[in-house]
Amino acid sequence: MDAITFHEPARMPRGFRCASRNCGLKREGPDLALFYSEAPAAAAAVFTRNQFPGAPIIVGRELIRKGRLRAVVVNSKISNVGTGEEGIRNARRMGELAAAELGVPADEVLMSSTGLIGRQLPMDLIEAGLRGMAAELQDDPLRGAEGIMTTDTYPKAISLSVGEATITVVGKGAGMIAPNMATMLVYIFTDAACDAPTLDRLLRDAVADTFNMLSVDTDTSTSDTCAILANGLAGPVDEAAFRQALRVACTRMTEMLARDGEGATKLLRATVQNARTVDEARKIARSIVESPLVKTMAYGADPNIGRVLMAVGKCFDCTVEPEKITVWINDTLVFTESARADFDEDELRRILGGDPVDIRVDLGVGTGCATAFGCDLTYGYIDENAAYASS
Amino acid sequence: MDAITFHEPARMPRGFRCASRNCGLKREGPDLALFYSEAPAAAAAVFTRNQFPGAPIIVGRELIRKGRLRAVVVNSKISNVGTGEEGIRNARRMGELAAAELGVPADEVLMSSTGLIGRQLPMDLIEAGLRGMAAELQDDPLRGAEGIMTTDTYPKAISLSVGEATITVVGKGAGMIAPNMATMLVYIFTDAACDAPTLDRLLRDAVADTFNMLSVDTDTSTSDTCAILANGLAGPVDEAAFRQALRVACTRMTEMLARDGEGATKLLRATVQNARTVDEARKIARSIVESPLVKTMAYGADPNIGRVLMAVGKCFDCTVEPEKITVWINDTLVFTESARADFDEDELRRILGGDPVDIRVDLGVGTGCATAFGCDLTYGYIDENAAYASS
Repeated sequence: MDAITFHEPARMPRGFRCASRNCGLKREGPDLALFYSEAPAAAAAVFTRNQFPGAPIIVGRELIRKGRLRAVVVNSKISNVGTGEEGIRNARRMGELAAAELGVPADEVLMSSTGLIGRQLPMDLIEAGLRGMAAELQDDPLRGAEGIMTTDTYPKAISLSVGEATITVVGKGAGMIAPNMATMLVYIFTDAACDAPTLDRLLRDAVADTFNMLSVDTDTSTSDTCAILANGLAGPVDEAAFRQALRVACTRMTEMLARDGEGATKLLRATVQNARTVDEARKIARSIVESPLVKTMAYGADPNIGRVLMAVGKCFDCTVEPEKITVWINDTLVFTESARADFDEDELRRILGGDPVDIRVDLGVGTGCATAFGCDLTYGYIDENAAYASS
Repeated sequence: MDAITFHEPARMPRGFRCASRNCGLKREGPDLALFYSEAPAAAAAVFTRNQFPGAPIIVGRELIRKGRLRAVVVNSKISNVGTGEEGIRNARRMGELAAAELGVPADEVLMSSTGLIGRQLPMDLIEAGLRGMAAELQDDPLRGAEGIMTTDTYPKAISLSVGEATITVVGKGAGMIAPNMATMLVYIFTDAACDAPTLDRLLRDAVADTFNMLSVDTDTSTSDTCAILANGLAGPVDEAAFRQALRVACTRMTEMLARDGEGATKLLRATVQNARTVDEARKIARSIVESPLVKTMAYGADPNIGRVLMAVGKCFDCTVEPEKITVWINDTLVFTESARADFDEDELRRILGGDPVDIRVDLGVGTGCATAFGCDLTYGYIDENAAYASS
């Protein structure tokens, strides 16, 4: 397997371009983004499992069946969720307006919206905003990333090579914002040649271990979307290499989103090994990164390792045998053989004060392994979700 | 059914007494409590489902099989969890010391510990503390309640009549504290005559809809205990009346614990009606009171009702049909027929600023109903669990 090379700065793959603008939804800053492939692209996507999905999710699930996309159009500030039939019509209209601006088929434009629930999109602003935007398409993925930001503190894009091809990931928002509900939106662009069924399989595979193992606050957005577009301009690439590169790219973006979670000061990772099954490893790893007590421990840098044991033990449906559990924090042994290990408290405090905090738990009851990604819980989270709620 | 009469102030039922002391585990304030029945009492108890249970839980599960208790001994500051065989021996020893002090059988004393995980109990302090404590037994349940407090802001005891009998509930700690993990400890005393199997059935029945529907921060303690002791001194009472009184008492205590959750400023209740099943109603009600976004909404008093829809929709395994959902907040209609209702935002802001906040969701897909109890999420929670973690 070749080494993975990241491009610094990130760039769009051949034939992909993007643009962003302020169309008046937000007081300032870009609130409308367009991503475009000059060649037809095979495509796949996964959407939120929330049972109260936004209109763009409902429409997007239909669109993606064709396995082809030419563009993605995204607005922030209003999520177009809880908007009934009018919301569905507006989502379709947003795709049609973008398609007309770009001169591509209307059923090959995926749309996303992120923001407040229960409000209709002001279609006049969207329509006026899209007009002339095709002329502004350019190669820097950060420009597109800026257009989809909500509470993110910086725009997020990465790109890396796989053979002659490039994979570029643009993402935003692994937190919830006030007064809007933020959303994880991730778009992956590649000039590798790959058919839609293969893309779908590879995407689901990568997402299962990366974005689906990310939790900032346990609250599942009604708008989460992760889509991949492959326009083939770089020709075919080795599938194993592509799979590995895609997974590395998704892991990196997952960590960026976690570390920039609302109010977060650090990345929190939990790896569970030797669980009875992979599914149980995933559940327990998530339980650790989602526990408010573990999250505040990471924030407060207090070596209160009992909280990790608590978070493991509260997974009632998993096989947990307390006497077999071993726990490390950033490779420092903290619990083994039914007892707290003899570690240096000050040293552990220093480790917990750093970034990332890596918690590793060996359950000793099988071979299942998984890693979950999260962040610490701080005053900043309360700030973003309560104190400034009405701003 | 007779009206329920609460005793103000609360009092112990006939034949029950309690005491508390500082034995040196905490710098100040009572850290050791004793509850005693002068007559043999039928008993039942339920314990944490956490798979990493404390030593007192392991021993308590054995003890309660006998269905009889004469006393309960409780310490705070150290939880005796993650302490292996030595911890088990110490838990038994603590029960034996209390039994000797009170002159009752050692296998009729239930012990609880709450506090830091992974530390052994200093048995010399416990032993010295218990010595002479029998002479201090008295009738005010608040005295016992003080002895089991951790981060609670006030001691909690209630009592009410059922026929000639009294039910008294003493409880503490529906939050997690730093550096200790707090625990829900609830002891219910009654002079009604009731056999142990009946007590067990009635207790499980009441707990399912009250304490088991309480969530301050989703983190399940390794030491949670709820025990009931019935010494029969008031003779038999009508079972239906007793069941009702027990449920009312447990509901009241659940609300007290929720409202005094760490950093909480208010009680948050979610009632889900017309779910497919009671189990689904419970899951969705819990999802609402546990959602960090709903909790911060209650704190920030922002009428961001989309967060309630999100919390319903993220219950992937429940039957949710968005177009059938109706939502009220303190009886104000906020969402119906796939759209935000036409409510007065300022009025809703005022309601959300009050205490309690009652969220009611009608799912329209069955007849299952349940209520969950929680609190808002505030800066105070972070204070208690991170900033002051090492104090």
